[in-house]
Amino acid sequence: MSDETSYHMTPEEFRRRGRELVDWIADYQERVGSLPVFPQVQPGEIRAALPARAPEQGEDFDAVLRDLEKVIVPGLTHWQSPNFFGFFPSNNSGPSILGELLSAGLGVQGMMWATSPAATELETHVLDWLVDLLDLPAAFRSDSDGGGVIQDTASSATLCALIAAREQVTDFASNDGGCDGSIVAYTSSQAHSSVEKAIKIAGLGCNNLRLIDVDDSFAMRPEVLAQRIEDDREAGLVPAFVCATVGTTATNGLDPLPEIGRICDEEDVWLHVDAAMAGTAALCPEFRSIHDGLEFADSYCFNPHKWMFTNFDCDCFWVADRAALINALTILPEYLRNEATESGAVIDYRDWQVPLGRRFRALKLWFVLRHYGAEGLRFHIRRHIALAQEFASWVDASDDFELAVQPPLNLVCFWHRAGDEFTRQLHQRLNASGRLYLTHAMLNGRYTLRMAIGQTHTEAEHVERAWQLMSDLATELAEGDS
Amino acid sequence: MSDETSYHMTPEEFRRRGRELVDWIADYQERVGSLPVFPQVQPGEIRAALPARAPEQGEDFDAVLRDLEKVIVPGLTHWQSPNFFGFFPSNNSGPSILGELLSAGLGVQGMMWATSPAATELETHVLDWLVDLLDLPAAFRSDSDGGGVIQDTASSATLCALIAAREQVTDFASNDGGCDGSIVAYTSSQAHSSVEKAIKIAGLGCNNLRLIDVDDSFAMRPEVLAQRIEDDREAGLVPAFVCATVGTTATNGLDPLPEIGRICDEEDVWLHVDAAMAGTAALCPEFRSIHDGLEFADSYCFNPHKWMFTNFDCDCFWVADRAALINALTILPEYLRNEATESGAVIDYRDWQVPLGRRFRALKLWFVLRHYGAEGLRFHIRRHIALAQEFASWVDASDDFELAVQPPLNLVCFWHRAGDEFTRQLHQRLNASGRLYLTHAMLNGRYTLRMAIGQTHTEAEHVERAWQLMSDLATELAEGDS
Repeated sequence: MSDETSYHMTPEEFRRRGRELVDWIADYQERVGSLPVFPQVQPGEIRAALPARAPEQGEDFDAVLRDLEKVIVPGLTHWQSPNFFGFFPSNNSGPSILGELLSAGLGVQGMMWATSPAATELETHVLDWLVDLLDLPAAFRSDSDGGGVIQDTASSATLCALIAAREQVTDFASNDGGCDGSIVAYTSSQAHSSVEKAIKIAGLGCNNLRLIDVDDSFAMRPEVLAQRIEDDREAGLVPAFVCATVGTTATNGLDPLPEIGRICDEEDVWLHVDAAMAGTAALCPEFRSIHDGLEFADSYCFNPHKWMFTNFDCDCFWVADRAALINALTILPEYLRNEATESGAVIDYRDWQVPLGRRFRALKLWFVLRHYGAEGLRFHIRRHIALAQEFASWVDASDDFELAVQPPLNLVCFWHRAGDEFTRQLHQRLNASGRLYLTHAMLNGRYTLRMAIGQTHTEAEHVERAWQLMSDLATELAEGDS
Repeated sequence: MSDETSYHMTPEEFRRRGRELVDWIADYQERVGSLPVFPQVQPGEIRAALPARAPEQGEDFDAVLRDLEKVIVPGLTHWQSPNFFGFFPSNNSGPSILGELLSAGLGVQGMMWATSPAATELETHVLDWLVDLLDLPAAFRSDSDGGGVIQDTASSATLCALIAAREQVTDFASNDGGCDGSIVAYTSSQAHSSVEKAIKIAGLGCNNLRLIDVDDSFAMRPEVLAQRIEDDREAGLVPAFVCATVGTTATNGLDPLPEIGRICDEEDVWLHVDAAMAGTAALCPEFRSIHDGLEFADSYCFNPHKWMFTNFDCDCFWVADRAALINALTILPEYLRNEATESGAVIDYRDWQVPLGRRFRALKLWFVLRHYGAEGLRFHIRRHIALAQEFASWVDASDDFELAVQPPLNLVCFWHRAGDEFTRQLHQRLNASGRLYLTHAMLNGRYTLRMAIGQTHTEAEHVERAWQLMSDLATELAEGDS
């Protein structure tokens, strides 16, 4: 019950309800593996179970928890199920959830150093930690000319990198005069849709985005990139931005950074590297080759909210030259002026991102890094990759299934040998079973299943059961067809 | 301790640590009023207290909580202190914190209906609730041609509205061909810096942003707007976007929406209305006149994360024609294709925002609306406004202080009659006391103090003590100078 004179939740009720909710979440974690991963609901079904109007009088928290159980949970896709193998993972963990809780409880704004110094300094600090942990180029550290910042997503990181590149190539004129249609950007045909979205938002126009061909491993062909840049220059256009991907969405394809980097270096083109999911693998020395050539990058990002046990949103974004980013995004109205900012001795993260306000997201990353230690994180990354490689070996040894491509890390792409329509129907039956969840890709025109292994609690048993289910349903489907 | 074989936090430890942290937050809420609002730390001081490298082995949660207390808390600006009167409020509440906790615990992705149907449907539902609660135009409801979405901030809402306007005015050509420097946008000289930032990001160039003069109440002068639009058309430019403000940052100035709306309507220019802080007042019928003329708006936003007890981030953004927004921001790569999307029967919120991923932010809004009920929310909004009006009456009756402008709602702008330098010094002493926190504005060239009243637990006693402190320190300062 709320304090009747104030309607607020009293500290006592907050303690009691908070404990109940923590227990509810712990229970959820324990049972989520037994829930159907993908909900069997029709569009509008959830809304139909909710009252048409907001309550005039406040309700008891018990009523909210009842609706959570009855209306909301049956309508969720359970991303934290160990049987979730769709898209890329978006995993979380105990320490991360608690870090988010603390951030909400403190309720501070980190838009500038002065609006909460600890929020800014802890963020800079853990991003420097991560430069060391992932063995990223020293230029990304805040004690060099660069530095790191937490963005909501890799989409926003790409947009910020593109704006910085656009400004740099126009000598900071496009912020004033606008775009003129001459600026060109490049990425591979396998890159994330956020590159196209950023090009559109930034006013460059997607006609000025070149989708560079890929090779058999779905990696960008650097010689094609070089040729397109040359062609564009000859046509009087201004090549400004290349987005290379470490771990593409469809297949985890790895663009060749050393070759691409050298081209960007020679051509003086901004190189942004998007390692949203795969970057986490660099915690382990044996997988660090995915970042070979990163010393050429002007900016880089990876998402602890995908595969590093830190709940969404938490994209870590670094630049080698922070002045280029800040100059592109800074605006200082009078009401934000303050001594610390004028001194130049502090970082004001509002100038590193699109929005002004920002919450204290570094807390959850700090909690995760301290709880697991580098050792604990490496343990799980190695485990996920080993599970994926083992799954791939089963596919490879199978008479019925076939690998679409050799999996570099924790994502296995494959299809049934009976063809696209069979694979598509199998996919539907698998997801309809509720016992796992997969998404698909089209590779060289073929319908491809994607098995992404990275949920916090996915263990060998879940992968084994998934493989058994695939084999069983494929047999069933083949028999039904015959 | 973590599970030694897995490094994960066990469910038992999560329960125990979760309870501890809930208690820590409840304790924080109880003591925050007695902490110095603004921290006395030097740049770099917090980082210096943290180890230079991330831990190799995981640490005990107790060690993290110790550092939280010792290193982090002394470096925070306490936005949740009842003595925080700076900027605009960014308040939170028990139910909201619990909603955020639940969102982190569930860890679902709401980028499309299919990635977690309940996340999308609850969001649409509570945004429809809010249309009714604030008595916004019915065109914003999802059962009309419009609809609402949660953005991180009003900055992002403005950017999305601008992109939609840019696309609409170019007949959806600028996404393809880029901008050509002819598109013009308008806002008042008192508008938020995010408008300029959006213009830059969207590639229009800030030379194409017209800052329209304001009247004595710091509201946009519609006749000047009309003239600038006419001038621009005569110069062959393309007027495309007007951002009007309900509650400007410096003074809570209210742009005259009926007049601006009629101009936009006649000129076929997109009207976006930014009511980030003030919009919440419309919960109360007696303050709804701030939205008179909103029926002309193409888009509108307000931030429950400012003044509606919902922790950051939570900006509610509506459009009257969702197709205009979606057409501007949609991209559908193969890996996101799914039956529900193809059916057209569902909302995919990824097409309503810049990023792709999104967390389940509707939960905290739902928790807040159900806990307080409309009645409880109105109670607090009325209370805050009454406190501000009472404070203003003290200023008005004072021989030493003077109102800069009549305060329309919960923000009082004033200065000391002894002049700018005196007011500036008084401001510094007030903030250095740690007993309250104020920020400033420059109004007609004068250094102005801003007293924004909206923190959840600000009561009459806090406002009274603030006024007493201002009077005392002003006397002290005057005596020291004589």
